[in-house]
Amino acid sequence: MFQILNKQKGSAARTGILTTPHGTIQTPVFMPVGTNGTVKGVKPEELVEIGAEIILGNTYHLHLRPGELLIKEKGGLQKWTNWRRPMLTDSGGFQVFSLGAGKDYTPLSNIPKIGVKISEDGVEFRSHLDGSKHFLSPEIAMQIQADLGADVIMAFDECAPGTSDKSYARQAMDRTHAWALKCKIAHEKIQKERPAEAQQMLFPIAQGVVYDDLRIESMKFMSELDLPGVAIGGLSVGESKEQMYHTLDVLQPHLPEHKPHYLMGVGTPEDILEAVDRGIDMFDCVLPTRLARHGTFWTHEGRFHIKQSGFKNSSEPLDTTCTCYTCRNYEMSYLRHIFTEGEILAMSLLSIHNLHFLLDLTAKIRAHINAGTFTTFKNDFLRNFTIPDGKNHNSDP
Amino acid sequence: MFQILNKQKGSAARTGILTTPHGTIQTPVFMPVGTNGTVKGVKPEELVEIGAEIILGNTYHLHLRPGELLIKEKGGLQKWTNWRRPMLTDSGGFQVFSLGAGKDYTPLSNIPKIGVKISEDGVEFRSHLDGSKHFLSPEIAMQIQADLGADVIMAFDECAPGTSDKSYARQAMDRTHAWALKCKIAHEKIQKERPAEAQQMLFPIAQGVVYDDLRIESMKFMSELDLPGVAIGGLSVGESKEQMYHTLDVLQPHLPEHKPHYLMGVGTPEDILEAVDRGIDMFDCVLPTRLARHGTFWTHEGRFHIKQSGFKNSSEPLDTTCTCYTCRNYEMSYLRHIFTEGEILAMSLLSIHNLHFLLDLTAKIRAHINAGTFTTFKNDFLRNFTIPDGKNHNSDP
Repeated sequence: MFQILNKQKGSAARTGILTTPHGTIQTPVFMPVGTNGTVKGVKPEELVEIGAEIILGNTYHLHLRPGELLIKEKGGLQKWTNWRRPMLTDSGGFQVFSLGAGKDYTPLSNIPKIGVKISEDGVEFRSHLDGSKHFLSPEIAMQIQADLGADVIMAFDECAPGTSDKSYARQAMDRTHAWALKCKIAHEKIQKERPAEAQQMLFPIAQGVVYDDLRIESMKFMSELDLPGVAIGGLSVGESKEQMYHTLDVLQPHLPEHKPHYLMGVGTPEDILEAVDRGIDMFDCVLPTRLARHGTFWTHEGRFHIKQSGFKNSSEPLDTTCTCYTCRNYEMSYLRHIFTEGEILAMSLLSIHNLHFLLDLTAKIRAHINAGTFTTFKNDFLRNFTIPDGKNHNSDP
Repeated sequence: MFQILNKQKGSAARTGILTTPHGTIQTPVFMPVGTNGTVKGVKPEELVEIGAEIILGNTYHLHLRPGELLIKEKGGLQKWTNWRRPMLTDSGGFQVFSLGAGKDYTPLSNIPKIGVKISEDGVEFRSHLDGSKHFLSPEIAMQIQADLGADVIMAFDECAPGTSDKSYARQAMDRTHAWALKCKIAHEKIQKERPAEAQQMLFPIAQGVVYDDLRIESMKFMSELDLPGVAIGGLSVGESKEQMYHTLDVLQPHLPEHKPHYLMGVGTPEDILEAVDRGIDMFDCVLPTRLARHGTFWTHEGRFHIKQSGFKNSSEPLDTTCTCYTCRNYEMSYLRHIFTEGEILAMSLLSIHNLHFLLDLTAKIRAHINAGTFTTFKNDFLRNFTIPDGKNHNSDP
């Protein structure tokens, strides 16, 4: 189901093809996020034109509203949302902690606060929408994701914050391992009842916070499960870029060669390049659309804000080297004007540009790996690309 | 420049073709409104697919931000906004009163309140954005609209509220007549300096509030000006549907046969049908997109709200007889879900549907007039179409 095409000499970067029931995906791949069943402000046809091959849906959100049973009845998430191509759903694990009661969740004290109750069976949490109580477990997460019907589904995990002490980090990791096994058992049972053409791939999520030995232990554990991919969770949740790159360096020799490696929640152009160099194949992040809704866009020179006064009179597109719909048809003075006026078209046009920027970047990455020129490309790109500060921007507003 | 194609027997309805520098327009026509240089939430290519042949821009808004000189420098409104087809700009007269200081403008007292100062020369008003002082006059309105560069431009008028007493209504009408003459003089001078392929058409706006004799007097005055069209202003600003239809009945015999008749700010499906029956050729209204952003949509059965609980589980499109992009690709349960989640895609998809509904309605109206079956079509349509109450809904939120 995952075929490696080429490897870059002097790097862990590689290209590959992941085959799913809804089509194939070229890796390294960036996956736009469609939290509530839509990539915010962008239509499916626009995503296709941008070059998206797979998008995400969020189990946590869709479970709370409208509920997976409605979506199942409607023929599954792809049919219902008019996105007929590959899709991935996360397990809800991350959101249970970050949205549900996450704001009160302080692993430093070793005991999560009000709102979230973790047991070996699963997690009781309160909805961020109305405070109502809910329960997610490995078994429930597998059933919800089967009902949603994505091609790639994720194991239920405990995503401990980057500030967790080692004792709690181990506890959360051990629980995540036990849950991965439970997910696998539940998943296999569920898949037997699904038709051959709708078999889902389950990826487990390795954790371990910022502790190298835990990270390695977790990656080894997940790699040895007989599952078709592995994910790295709990990075880009508050630690520095250096910390993230360090963890990826530590993990790299332990990544299972023949499975796709998915780094969850990343992200920025520079992080994608650094992670690909360290052997990562798959990425997702809300950043391109979230930044766009707030007026921020990427160019090959870095990150800019559309309200910058220098753009008031500019006849240039957002990026003179860009071929996206927005850059082909609109100049900065216009985009600045409609953004200033609060027009939703501005959010859509900037979202299209930012998504195109990352998908174009991954397309170039693939081409350069295939040509053996990835390292030069990466260095050239990063030399021209100004990063505002040394911080990790994957969850910027 | 305006050619009448067919007339419906037993009705004042007619079809025609209006030729402009950016292309031809089939009448009766509905013109989507792009206040700030964008039809809210809808891209130009989507407008073309929906069947829009001409859209509006707002002089008042574009003059305040970003300013007509920037737009002129950028090659005009059409090029700048990526809408390369016919365009119409209003004069700013309506907004000066309704937005600027309009909230304090009480013609019943015969003296407009703080914020707006009317003289024979023009109107001093305050910006609704920052309270800054501005001045618009017939001459300035002509210059701004020449800089914006639309195909059809409107004379500067005083739009007195539907509650004005007769004495004030006459005063405002007389001023509007004097201004129309000033506009014509300024316009002719400006057009001489424009190239032959960029000549603009000036339409004067007849006023008269709800007073039949004033309405007739004003329409006669405007008709006799040597200008290529006439508009009816100041209807759909608070009076009842009955009052509006009555005024149109009164005006109908006085409409200049060989010029297009534009009813400003209308509107609803039922009003368009009634007005076409009374000889109107052109319409504009913010209603389709404004209703959409608030979750309301039209079908051939009437007006509905997407959050209606009956739609929660519905696999039907918004309207089973509709061929728009939204109805072809999305069911109500999905649209209801993304609207509930506050997704901007919901606003875009409902806007596309509502605009398509009105443009499809006008296309059907034209086909039926050409076939001589307009009256039957109108009666059949209105029999199936439930109007929530007897009120005028053209400026609903």
